[in-house]
Amino acid sequence: MKKVDWYQDFVDFAYRPKEDDVVCLFRFEPSQGVSNLEAVGRIASESSAGTWTTLSNLPRNIERVKARSFEIKGRFVRVAYPIDLWEPGNMPQLLSGVAGNIFGMRALKNLRLVDISLPVAYTKNFLGPQFGIDGIRRMLKVKRRPVTGAVAKPKVGWDAEEHAKIAYETWSGGFDLVKDDENLTSLKFNKFEQRVKLCYRMRERAERESGNRKSALFNITGETNQMIKRAKLLHDYGFEYVMIDVVVTGFSSLQTMRNVCQDLGLAIHAHRAMHAAFDRNPLHGITMLFLAKMCRLVGVDQLHVGAVVGKLAGTPKQVLEIKNQMVLKTIKNLSPVHLQQQWNSIKPVFPVSSGGIHPGIIPEVLRIMGNEIVMLVSGGIHGHPDGTRSGALAAMQSIMASMDGIPLREYAMTHAELRAALEKWGRIRPE
Amino acid sequence: MKKVDWYQDFVDFAYRPKEDDVVCLFRFEPSQGVSNLEAVGRIASESSAGTWTTLSNLPRNIERVKARSFEIKGRFVRVAYPIDLWEPGNMPQLLSGVAGNIFGMRALKNLRLVDISLPVAYTKNFLGPQFGIDGIRRMLKVKRRPVTGAVAKPKVGWDAEEHAKIAYETWSGGFDLVKDDENLTSLKFNKFEQRVKLCYRMRERAERESGNRKSALFNITGETNQMIKRAKLLHDYGFEYVMIDVVVTGFSSLQTMRNVCQDLGLAIHAHRAMHAAFDRNPLHGITMLFLAKMCRLVGVDQLHVGAVVGKLAGTPKQVLEIKNQMVLKTIKNLSPVHLQQQWNSIKPVFPVSSGGIHPGIIPEVLRIMGNEIVMLVSGGIHGHPDGTRSGALAAMQSIMASMDGIPLREYAMTHAELRAALEKWGRIRPE
Repeated sequence: MKKVDWYQDFVDFAYRPKEDDVVCLFRFEPSQGVSNLEAVGRIASESSAGTWTTLSNLPRNIERVKARSFEIKGRFVRVAYPIDLWEPGNMPQLLSGVAGNIFGMRALKNLRLVDISLPVAYTKNFLGPQFGIDGIRRMLKVKRRPVTGAVAKPKVGWDAEEHAKIAYETWSGGFDLVKDDENLTSLKFNKFEQRVKLCYRMRERAERESGNRKSALFNITGETNQMIKRAKLLHDYGFEYVMIDVVVTGFSSLQTMRNVCQDLGLAIHAHRAMHAAFDRNPLHGITMLFLAKMCRLVGVDQLHVGAVVGKLAGTPKQVLEIKNQMVLKTIKNLSPVHLQQQWNSIKPVFPVSSGGIHPGIIPEVLRIMGNEIVMLVSGGIHGHPDGTRSGALAAMQSIMASMDGIPLREYAMTHAELRAALEKWGRIRPE
Repeated sequence: MKKVDWYQDFVDFAYRPKEDDVVCLFRFEPSQGVSNLEAVGRIASESSAGTWTTLSNLPRNIERVKARSFEIKGRFVRVAYPIDLWEPGNMPQLLSGVAGNIFGMRALKNLRLVDISLPVAYTKNFLGPQFGIDGIRRMLKVKRRPVTGAVAKPKVGWDAEEHAKIAYETWSGGFDLVKDDENLTSLKFNKFEQRVKLCYRMRERAERESGNRKSALFNITGETNQMIKRAKLLHDYGFEYVMIDVVVTGFSSLQTMRNVCQDLGLAIHAHRAMHAAFDRNPLHGITMLFLAKMCRLVGVDQLHVGAVVGKLAGTPKQVLEIKNQMVLKTIKNLSPVHLQQQWNSIKPVFPVSSGGIHPGIIPEVLRIMGNEIVMLVSGGIHGHPDGTRSGALAAMQSIMASMDGIPLREYAMTHAELRAALEKWGRIRPE
């Protein structure tokens, strides 16, 4: 008997996943001296019921919790996990298996969790988004065009009063949403409650003056009970959303807040700071696609997926894959790096494009991403030579021009704000 | 004026950090065509108050929230963050800044958050560990030797009754702790409450028979309220700990649970599944050292730091750095990849060594790590030819031999369990 054949129990190329198996797709590179067979056996073993040595005793239920690597194609392996391995509705527990210890095994040089396919037997224990795209559009009374929003920039430094004025200018320029950025929670000279109160007044005014619906994405990120308190405050002021920075808070509290937001009738806008710490290296870590699927399952209503163009990494192909995964009901088994997914009753997530967008590149963003997005234009409006309101007007003009198929240069001839924006940024990409 | 000089506002080589600044050490690699100056300016900017373009208006408070890159040495840069940038006691908010969007910037090819230095002004708003090493030793009545524990292996598959029997065997072999592994929460055929109840009975028996204190690390990982419920159940059964898988739950709920555990008088054992998704690539992501410091600050009592030898990655140097950071009161400014740290009243964390340890390599683990550790030996006891209890006895014998400076081969001549263990595993490292 070979010394290290225990892991072969976790490889079965004849195995066909059952309807209620969870299936994961990994890209793997074995360490030197480790065979492909050993590598994929260890992946299935460490992420389910294995250990590193032969044991004196095995449970009678072992087959009900044992993962199986069942298909290798090049550097990609598919692993099937029996449904009984997972606690219903416990997202952190799923992560601890498929995205847990396995990344640290010496036997692997690199390992990347590329995609996951979740059976109905698993998804049915999660709420999914409360509103989804249709619900958000109804709430904001925005029918066809992209929903628009802006972060006050610089993202921290304004006091609550200055912040509320910027919000007012943003709304008055035609934008639907103002958003707190990831590091603005409750700071010394911009306390959460004060900001909410002052923005509430400014919203009243902006709505009255414009006749349009205006809303805000206040960043409640913090300890769980702190977040609950802040969510209740937003509810009391009649706001429609909470904004949560989902990676830095983590999935335990995201699940908690999803439950709380159900009771309060609040939508969840999900920021994703820190995702690039584990999704940027193409050989190792976890894809944004996987993270996005977990967010849809738990039930955020809006999620940052990338800008396609702009200051943040991410190719159009990657961003579109994530976008499709957020909006479609069914994902077919298209390529070696996609798994099929049936979302069934889980609603779509409104994809958010942000990061370095300005009026000059809006047509390109819309051409690639379509109109079914929330588009955040922040530096790209506050940096407008005539200030925030003109910037917001310019961005709205750019959207209207794009939707009507009119070249920006042409539209700018009759729209001064857009013209000034193009003079500053042209069609150049952000620095 | 140069087109892209806005970021220079965030670089100041004459700046000396103030006593209450948070200081971070990053390793950076600019993308092609990006200068070092631009790269470090963007790091400071994006992690504090910057954006990608010039703005029409700046807040009067901007200097109070602006980070400054103040020292470059080779590929390392130090960045100082004013204390007013951070919300007191809000760990996710800190992460959203220093460990947030910056990893995704196109301007950087790679970025690694290596270390952080936290001023008292910041640490004073966190609880830190409730028990620390001394408290845990008092609780378990273990004076000098390493605290010992084992996960039932395979880590999932046993029903609650089988699980409790394995716990009993583990305790009876002389071990202090039994531990649930990361993916064992409440599963179909091993429900949390049932497992706790049956282990409670077995613990009574093991304590009565041995005259020693025995405890358990039950995995409460899940949605926050689920965790609170489980923590209360453990408290009601008189157990001393909760086990939380801190990366997959996230820091919002970890802070919540730290507060809950204060009220219940429970210690927190922290597992770290998923850490290697972002800490393994030496060029990008976040170091385990950083994660460990956040865990100490929030206040876990025990944290997995690596085995030095064994199945999981991590060099002895890295593991020892983390270990020292967990146990020392003061960390001096030793090298380009260390920052100083004053922990003051924040108690030490008991470092946990685990992952592929068996009786044959225990002396090596203790030689490198010292006795001030919690040592988990799981496959290394359950894989013993004569079963779990003999395995635990063998591991305890190996510890005693090590502490008395007796070579294992010699000690094994008079200790049958150790002899059988060495015959199986010798001194070879785990496969």
